[in-house]
Amino acid sequence: MKPSLPKGTRDFLPETMSKRTYITDVIRSVFTHFGFAPIETPAMENLSTLTGKYGEEGDRLIFKILNSGDFLAKANEQAIEEGDAGALTQSIAEKALRYDLTVPFARFVVQNQQNLQMPFKRYQIQPVWRADRPQKGRFREFYQCDADVVGSYSLLQELEFISIYQQVFEKLNVSATIRLNNRKILAGIAEAFDISDKLIDFTVSLDKMDKIGEEGVIKELDKKGFGAKAIEGFKQIVRITGKPEDQLKQLEQVFQASAIGKSGIEDTRFLIENVDQSEKVELALDLSLARGLDYYTGSIFEVVANDVEIGSIGGGGRYADLTSVFGRKDLPGVGISFGLDRIFLVMEEQNLFPEATNKRIDIMLANFGEKEALYGLKLANELRKLEVNVDVYPDAAKMKKQLDFANRNQISFVLLIGSAEMESGVFTLKDMESGTQEALSRIELLERFGNNTKKNAPYGRH
Amino acid sequence: MKPSLPKGTRDFLPETMSKRTYITDVIRSVFTHFGFAPIETPAMENLSTLTGKYGEEGDRLIFKILNSGDFLAKANEQAIEEGDAGALTQSIAEKALRYDLTVPFARFVVQNQQNLQMPFKRYQIQPVWRADRPQKGRFREFYQCDADVVGSYSLLQELEFISIYQQVFEKLNVSATIRLNNRKILAGIAEAFDISDKLIDFTVSLDKMDKIGEEGVIKELDKKGFGAKAIEGFKQIVRITGKPEDQLKQLEQVFQASAIGKSGIEDTRFLIENVDQSEKVELALDLSLARGLDYYTGSIFEVVANDVEIGSIGGGGRYADLTSVFGRKDLPGVGISFGLDRIFLVMEEQNLFPEATNKRIDIMLANFGEKEALYGLKLANELRKLEVNVDVYPDAAKMKKQLDFANRNQISFVLLIGSAEMESGVFTLKDMESGTQEALSRIELLERFGNNTKKNAPYGRH
Repeated sequence: MKPSLPKGTRDFLPETMSKRTYITDVIRSVFTHFGFAPIETPAMENLSTLTGKYGEEGDRLIFKILNSGDFLAKANEQAIEEGDAGALTQSIAEKALRYDLTVPFARFVVQNQQNLQMPFKRYQIQPVWRADRPQKGRFREFYQCDADVVGSYSLLQELEFISIYQQVFEKLNVSATIRLNNRKILAGIAEAFDISDKLIDFTVSLDKMDKIGEEGVIKELDKKGFGAKAIEGFKQIVRITGKPEDQLKQLEQVFQASAIGKSGIEDTRFLIENVDQSEKVELALDLSLARGLDYYTGSIFEVVANDVEIGSIGGGGRYADLTSVFGRKDLPGVGISFGLDRIFLVMEEQNLFPEATNKRIDIMLANFGEKEALYGLKLANELRKLEVNVDVYPDAAKMKKQLDFANRNQISFVLLIGSAEMESGVFTLKDMESGTQEALSRIELLERFGNNTKKNAPYGRH
Repeated sequence: MKPSLPKGTRDFLPETMSKRTYITDVIRSVFTHFGFAPIETPAMENLSTLTGKYGEEGDRLIFKILNSGDFLAKANEQAIEEGDAGALTQSIAEKALRYDLTVPFARFVVQNQQNLQMPFKRYQIQPVWRADRPQKGRFREFYQCDADVVGSYSLLQELEFISIYQQVFEKLNVSATIRLNNRKILAGIAEAFDISDKLIDFTVSLDKMDKIGEEGVIKELDKKGFGAKAIEGFKQIVRITGKPEDQLKQLEQVFQASAIGKSGIEDTRFLIENVDQSEKVELALDLSLARGLDYYTGSIFEVVANDVEIGSIGGGGRYADLTSVFGRKDLPGVGISFGLDRIFLVMEEQNLFPEATNKRIDIMLANFGEKEALYGLKLANELRKLEVNVDVYPDAAKMKKQLDFANRNQISFVLLIGSAEMESGVFTLKDMESGTQEALSRIELLERFGNNTKKNAPYGRH
């Protein structure tokens, strides 16, 4: 039997794990510094919790879990006869794998509301599953990294999320831009051009500016049946350029009559005026940004890497209602997420992972035989208690083989303790990069590594 | 729609998450100090990878994932007609949720062997799923924390795992004992009493000494058809007491003729003689210990909490063959695991979690209005860059409400910046435990928290 994995799923080997953990540790630490609390929800939800929340296509992409035991006993016989897999599913699969973190979070908030203080700030870093057709960069199992605050209308929350994006990408050394828009601005545009009923359709075309250019979008709008007023409006929007403040001023001219549009401008101006200007990650106003329009009701965010063409590496926005579908009304919130797989690709392509990310092991103790190894184990355990990562080569193999092993595992130092070293109490430490050797006593070794290593190896030093 | 979860699954709220992460961070850090590398495998495996590995009962408890799309098109029609759910499953579910971490690890090793250096030391902390009947303390989704080294016959590995148990439980402050046995000792006993063909049955009864006592076990052995020689042998085994070294001496008398038994004694003596005696977590020889007997071929470990009756909180052993079922022969190994849920219960019952585990947030910035809050946000961001966890109350609510929120969230300090403080540049810091207030400048605040907090809050400071 040749081992394999279901398509669209992946094993993560140590080197990849260290890099992924490097990213999630940064995200997690920034979430924590901003007062967000970690939660986890189970991989399985009741199928009824998930269906109807992601549209028809989404429902199809949810992985369903077969009821255990004699699931046929309760199976819908008519569905079997008619070969109707969809109808049969309802009767033989009560559970499903979560499709995202938002719906489970909404369920969580309502189910645990007695135990949550509002406003409630949570983050959640867990895998989700989608029966999508696997493609380059698109998987059937992937991690989402979400943070949300629910129970507050304050625009300070938006400012906080912008700061989170800034601090995370600054720490990761990823050059990025935060694109900002507001659902209310889009609604204002729609009002001004009499297309309120077709706003989503309009923004879908707007969003294609980058790809098909102004002429292309105009053609598409025409084909979709948008009239002259809408097309004229589109041209107006495209001509709005300059600094965010200037863009807002131009925009004000477009919908002088729209109360909702004005409110969107006011919110956006507040963010632009109060964002920390000293940060490297800048804020840009992007009037074509319309992600999650059916869900977001205020600010909309998207983060893109400046030097790598890969789509968005983060996104989010404000929503008016998270939980009414589960029976709790009037719970607004703001949330953002990080695209772990894409951030990984950006950092890989730009060589942004610190060298230390691959250096999991500080010292390997070479093995000269049982007596020497047992002597060395004690020293290894002392070092480990000082947070040094120490591997002990298990067999008295040829030294070349042992040093090869150390090199292949990117181990920084090899400690050589033969019988002479045991007697003298002075050990030989070989620097595997430079090849130089040094003589150190036990105390010298403990002092040197006990103090020094923490800044070398970010991974695993929690 | 009232939200609920599938039975046997759980939400983890922030307080529980912090405690669980406290435990896993300790385990993870010790694994890392011992040179173990992290890996992850997907939640889904091909059903064929898992079936037949856990026995018939195990196969039933594997959660199967319904094929997506029109799964009925390939369904086994005969199975439908006959109402044979088992046979039908094969044709409509190609994937399944992992049942443990060992089989996926074996699959991983064979599939990725080109990229692994032997001996390969990995750890893995991920959830597994079992369609077991949920009970108190038994869940359908739970985390396993495993470490294994494969590709080495050296007994040093066993010593290393014993040290890992010692360092983890010492760090967690859990008083525990490591029980040790060896499959070869059990084989020696079986040889000596002519019951080699019924060894597992014999050890199952042996294992009940704690519960039903010597008389009870004798009755059970008799009922199972064990003869006088076996029962006499059992009495001999029970009488073996004292220090581990003494137990081994007495045991030597029992199977002078058994080569395999002698080899088991030799291995066990090596471990007992070379284990670090200065550690708090002690090693005990338990001749009735027989967990995973169909799998383990050498040393067997089990860890129990000394002061809480809860069963084992860890276990493991040496195996001769991990991967031949996936086509790679002769790959021996040793592995251990930690029982996260039970360790959690022990620590909860004995109040062993550090107080800081619940103190996620160091400082809450009180909100006196927009101008003050915007001023405070800048300071908050400076503190956050120094790894201080700062929450900002989003609205200018009544101060009582804000302080209540801080108390409920166990926030250590509240920073009060009103218009007077903005003008003077001297802020008021309220200690929420003592109730005392202090006046601090920006610089004083940054110095105080930037240096001080790391040791206070273990969680989230990666």
